[in-house]
Amino acid sequence: MTSRLDKFREHRERMNEKILASEHLGIKRFFRLDGATYEDGALTSRTKELLGLVASAVLRCDDCVDYHLIQCIEAGYSDEELQDALNIALIVGGSIVIPHLRHAYETMELLRKE
Amino acid sequence: MTSRLDKFREHRERMNEKILASEHLGIKRFFRLDGATYEDGALTSRTKELLGLVASAVLRCDDCVDYHLIQCIEAGYSDEELQDALNIALIVGGSIVIPHLRHAYETMELLRKE
Amino acid sequence: MTSRLDKFREHRERMNEKILASEHLGIKRFFRLDGATYEDGALTSRTKELLGLVASAVLRCDDCVDYHLIQCIEAGYSDEELQDALNIALIVGGSIVIPHLRHAYETMELLRKE
Amino acid sequence: MTSRLDKFREHRERMNEKILASEHLGIKRFFRLDGATYEDGALTSRTKELLGLVASAVLRCDDCVDYHLIQCIEAGYSDEELQDALNIALIVGGSIVIPHLRHAYETMELLRKE
Amino acid sequence: MTSRLDKFREHRERMNEKILASEHLGIKRFFRLDGATYEDGALTSRTKELLGLVASAVLRCDDCVDYHLIQCIEAGYSDEELQDALNIALIVGGSIVIPHLRHAYETMELLRKE
Amino acid sequence: MTSRLDKFREHRERMNEKILASEHLGIKRFFRLDGATYEDGALTSRTKELLGLVASAVLRCDDCVDYHLIQCIEAGYSDEELQDALNIALIVGGSIVIPHLRHAYETMELLRKE
Repeated sequence: MTSRLDKFREHRERMNEKILASEHLGIKRFFRLDGATYEDGALTSRTKELLGLVASAVLRCDDCVDYHLIQCIEAGYSDEELQDALNIALIVGGSIVIPHLRHAYETMELLRKE
Repeated sequence: MTSRLDKFREHRERMNEKILASEHLGIKRFFRLDGATYEDGALTSRTKELLGLVASAVLRCDDCVDYHLIQCIEAGYSDEELQDALNIALIVGGSIVIPHLRHAYETMELLRKE
Repeated sequence: MTSRLDKFREHRERMNEKILASEHLGIKRFFRLDGATYEDGALTSRTKELLGLVASAVLRCDDCVDYHLIQCIEAGYSDEELQDALNIALIVGGSIVIPHLRHAYETMELLRKE
Repeated sequence: MTSRLDKFREHRERMNEKILASEHLGIKRFFRLDGATYEDGALTSRTKELLGLVASAVLRCDDCVDYHLIQCIEAGYSDEELQDALNIALIVGGSIVIPHLRHAYETMELLRKE
Repeated sequence: MTSRLDKFREHRERMNEKILASEHLGIKRFFRLDGATYEDGALTSRTKELLGLVASAVLRCDDCVDYHLIQCIEAGYSDEELQDALNIALIVGGSIVIPHLRHAYETMELLRKE
Repeated sequence: MTSRLDKFREHRERMNEKILASEHLGIKRFFRLDGATYEDGALTSRTKELLGLVASAVLRCDDCVDYHLIQCIEAGYSDEELQDALNIALIVGGSIVIPHLRHAYETMELLRKE
């Protein structure tokens, strides 16, 4: 059975390929710059992924939360650390963030099972 | 057949339980404070639910709209009153609120059938 | 000395006049519709002003908060009731609402002095 | 098989009818004003649809993006022009817009196949 | 006397220089990409500035509105056309956009006087 | 001469006192919970302040950005680290964040001079 995460990954990859294939120079450059932003710099890539997670959560974008959770778990964050980061998003963004908190907890569970 | 509202309620309850079971003190306290906010005070609980509905609608959160519609109908609001509240959300938040207005009307219909 | 509220009122009135004087039919109709939205209907005008206040606070618009506070105090709300409404905005919208809460408290104080 | 776009159109039409049938004067007037806003004026209807598309994309509303893409393609915009408009939304709104860019590209593809 | 627009331009230029002088590669690339986005492409630079204006207005950023109004007036748009574009922002974004509409009208007036 | 930061600190402290003096239990609890959120937990207080900074920047709240910059500099972050964090906010939130980036750079400069 295809999980929600597999569907997300497949759709994300397929559509990103189509977007890049459309050869719009500005969009391609944005995608490249976006990727480069999370590389090691004054802050480590690991720290940046956590910043990306919290930014995604307060802006209430489930796809972005899923993407950064995948990256964060790959970077070795524990559930306790991720919950602590999501708690910042919750206090800053308010109860309107709660549906995305539920989504994030579900994603974390799915990722730990993989 | 499981309705959209039943699915929402089941998912909401199941994930809220998991969130609380994770024993993050800050998140638990936020949930408790969130619940307490809608209790009777200088304003009645009934009035507060309507405020929660409009706040959810202008912030464009379907799950939050559904939750507050459930509470509002339990509190005895008529469809005419709920539509009048959603109209405030529409004028303040603009046409970008319309998809959530469609969602809210559908939810009201489902709730009246229950 | 001209208070912050006097300046707001003067600027608001002067620019609204200029906007309406520009004779853009769509904008004029929007302004008229906006005004009519807060009149008595299934909900009282008084209740609608409180909904407008909370919508403005979660969307973090100081000018809109000021406008609806003026209307709410005219409609006879007590400070305790307004604080209770702003508390809904705070829990729904999170700590990002706090600077606007400070602004709202200051406005309430200025209005009570008038 | 019913496509995602057919489902969107059917749901949109059915719920809009119910909303208008509820006879809320304010909501009805808003819908009429919304429709009139995109008619020819100082700017052409064609230009206004593109403005509606970019506004919908930065506000991250998939349903609104779909609606304006339908209108824009009817108005004769090429894929290259629509991508150029979406690129504005991407740079103004940031990477949080990317999931909606994926959605928009998919919608454009579905619309070109019709 | 220094006008509001002169202060904005001076602050904008001075701080942009400091930002670029800090030699953060990612930020520098974003600024370059941002500038390139509004150049002629499938859409003209002139059309793109209008899209930037409406995006800025619905996202309620006065500084961004001022910047794009300067560009739009340089690109030859009439007041009637700019009002028609701002009307789209008003209907999409709702009454919460009105304070920014007042700001935009004032800026247009200041720019026409220059 | 009173700097912009001194004014912000004075206004923030004075109004927070008035808010707490109003004895609204829900608001008081929110303030206490907000404070506790940034204490050491699974993540260090130092990391949490950086998360708070990025959340504030993508939500475009200058007062919140200032507050977290004060905390971040107290926690020992270098300018290069803060710029790297703000770059995440810029790529996630888009060019609409730029006015707040200018504000943040100015605040950092003021704080380093103190």
